[in-house]
Amino acid sequence: MTTRLHGVFAPVLTPMRDDLSPDTPKWIAFCRQLLADGCTGLAPFGTTSEANSLGLDERMEMLDALVEAGVPAAQLMPGVGTCAIPDTVKLSAQAARLGCGGVLMLPPFYYKGVSDEGIFRAVAEVIERVGDARLRVYVYNIPPIAVVGYSLAVIERLLKAYPGVVVGMKDSSGNWSYQQSVLEHFPGFDVFTGSERFLLANLRMGGVGTISAMANVIPGKIRFLYDNYLAENADQVQERLDRYREATRDYAAIPALKQIMANRTGDRTWLNLRPPLVNLSEATAHEMLAKYAAA
Amino acid sequence: MTTRLHGVFAPVLTPMRDDLSPDTPKWIAFCRQLLADGCTGLAPFGTTSEANSLGLDERMEMLDALVEAGVPAAQLMPGVGTCAIPDTVKLSAQAARLGCGGVLMLPPFYYKGVSDEGIFRAVAEVIERVGDARLRVYVYNIPPIAVVGYSLAVIERLLKAYPGVVVGMKDSSGNWSYQQSVLEHFPGFDVFTGSERFLLANLRMGGVGTISAMANVIPGKIRFLYDNYLAENADQVQERLDRYREATRDYAAIPALKQIMANRTGDRTWLNLRPPLVNLSEATAHEMLAKYAAA
Repeated sequence: MTTRLHGVFAPVLTPMRDDLSPDTPKWIAFCRQLLADGCTGLAPFGTTSEANSLGLDERMEMLDALVEAGVPAAQLMPGVGTCAIPDTVKLSAQAARLGCGGVLMLPPFYYKGVSDEGIFRAVAEVIERVGDARLRVYVYNIPPIAVVGYSLAVIERLLKAYPGVVVGMKDSSGNWSYQQSVLEHFPGFDVFTGSERFLLANLRMGGVGTISAMANVIPGKIRFLYDNYLAENADQVQERLDRYREATRDYAAIPALKQIMANRTGDRTWLNLRPPLVNLSEATAHEMLAKYAAA
Repeated sequence: MTTRLHGVFAPVLTPMRDDLSPDTPKWIAFCRQLLADGCTGLAPFGTTSEANSLGLDERMEMLDALVEAGVPAAQLMPGVGTCAIPDTVKLSAQAARLGCGGVLMLPPFYYKGVSDEGIFRAVAEVIERVGDARLRVYVYNIPPIAVVGYSLAVIERLLKAYPGVVVGMKDSSGNWSYQQSVLEHFPGFDVFTGSERFLLANLRMGGVGTISAMANVIPGKIRFLYDNYLAENADQVQERLDRYREATRDYAAIPALKQIMANRTGDRTWLNLRPPLVNLSEATAHEMLAKYAAA
């Protein structure tokens, strides 16, 4: 039996101690809470997780600990994409071995202006080296940050070369017309929108849900729209949901979300961030929290 | 005794076997050849080395092997910058332990639009964690590829906070007015130009040399200019030198350089590249090699 991943996934924020080491017990508890609060699954080690600021060893130890703690691997889609094929292979092989429902794969993102051929070969090389039939790849398209992205031509080649292995994507391009093209061209390819702003549009066109930073703080509200997208008032529900993102859109996303968590829990360590990210200033945080409370 | 690094450094190309594993013996021989042919030092694991396409373990094993083979660590400035502080710490600590003359440090480059404060903290955190008095940091500014770079304000803060530890930079911005500003503002800060096109200008303003991709193929010619920059005909020597870069400038740099190496040695494995990089087409390679031969 294969259950395809779908629904509402949080790219889980990574709580850190004052020495900036990942607070794994707190992280595991937060993962459990997100599932209890409405997430259908989790995408640990996403952009919002500061994954690319974590060491390779740290990521692997955390994922082992999460699965060992009993969080169902089948509901996990850990981020695995790095600049280097051997490192991406390590992370992907571990995820497949642990039985993760999928992996979220950034393209190699150091070199810019690379060709479609190069991106295709990079992903293909990872899949071949992992060589595990359990591997399920979701390509991760986020050109605003990674700069390098996945073109439709690359997706098409990957689907032809690795049917049943390359099964979907997360699109964080912020570009609805791109996402629409993917949905139109590749029926059966499971597209998660990277922003819950497009959730209704995504579902109406056959998309499978969202992997959204906002799912860290309003998982239940996003899940409600997912569960009721066929309802008559779905557009209003979407509009209502958009107000939370609107409230935070003028602020650096990860610092803002950690600020909301610190404010909600009273636990100041939620503010710990790894450089190069830094916290909002006190005044800015105050302003953002007020807008968020009013959303 | 402290000898400051200076002169002509090659960001050493990484020869790979057909299975894309690094061919370490061939690499070590190439490193020795470059030193014999005019390089005053080597910057293995630079952008041109496809360093960010190598796994963390691969990089560490290669550097150990290079020093073990007797290439003087004091003449080495390995690239160590990654997206994640713990990984950069690992590579930097190894280099310091081996007695490398310096390390070449990219800023963390995944997140874009980060603040000066964030970049400063990232470098500071690495230096503090390495905690080795032998560490000598050269910051690596290459916004055309890494997107994230080092502002003058960050350099100033680093020099104040870590005098004698942060000692220089490689500037591959391609922006002479930026490099000129750094040279003017920070006397005693050792600036290598990332392109030998600016070598004469760099040396005339007190810079210390170049770390140039072209030093992989014309180390002796670049060294000649370095040794004779005070000569009356230095401008002509620079102009003569520029013709080699001109000949290759319309082509992807790393594939072009590997093509030149393959052509020169008759060893086709020099063409092996890690995805996402790909070779020039046969026609393009032919055209480039003809221009290069005529330079």
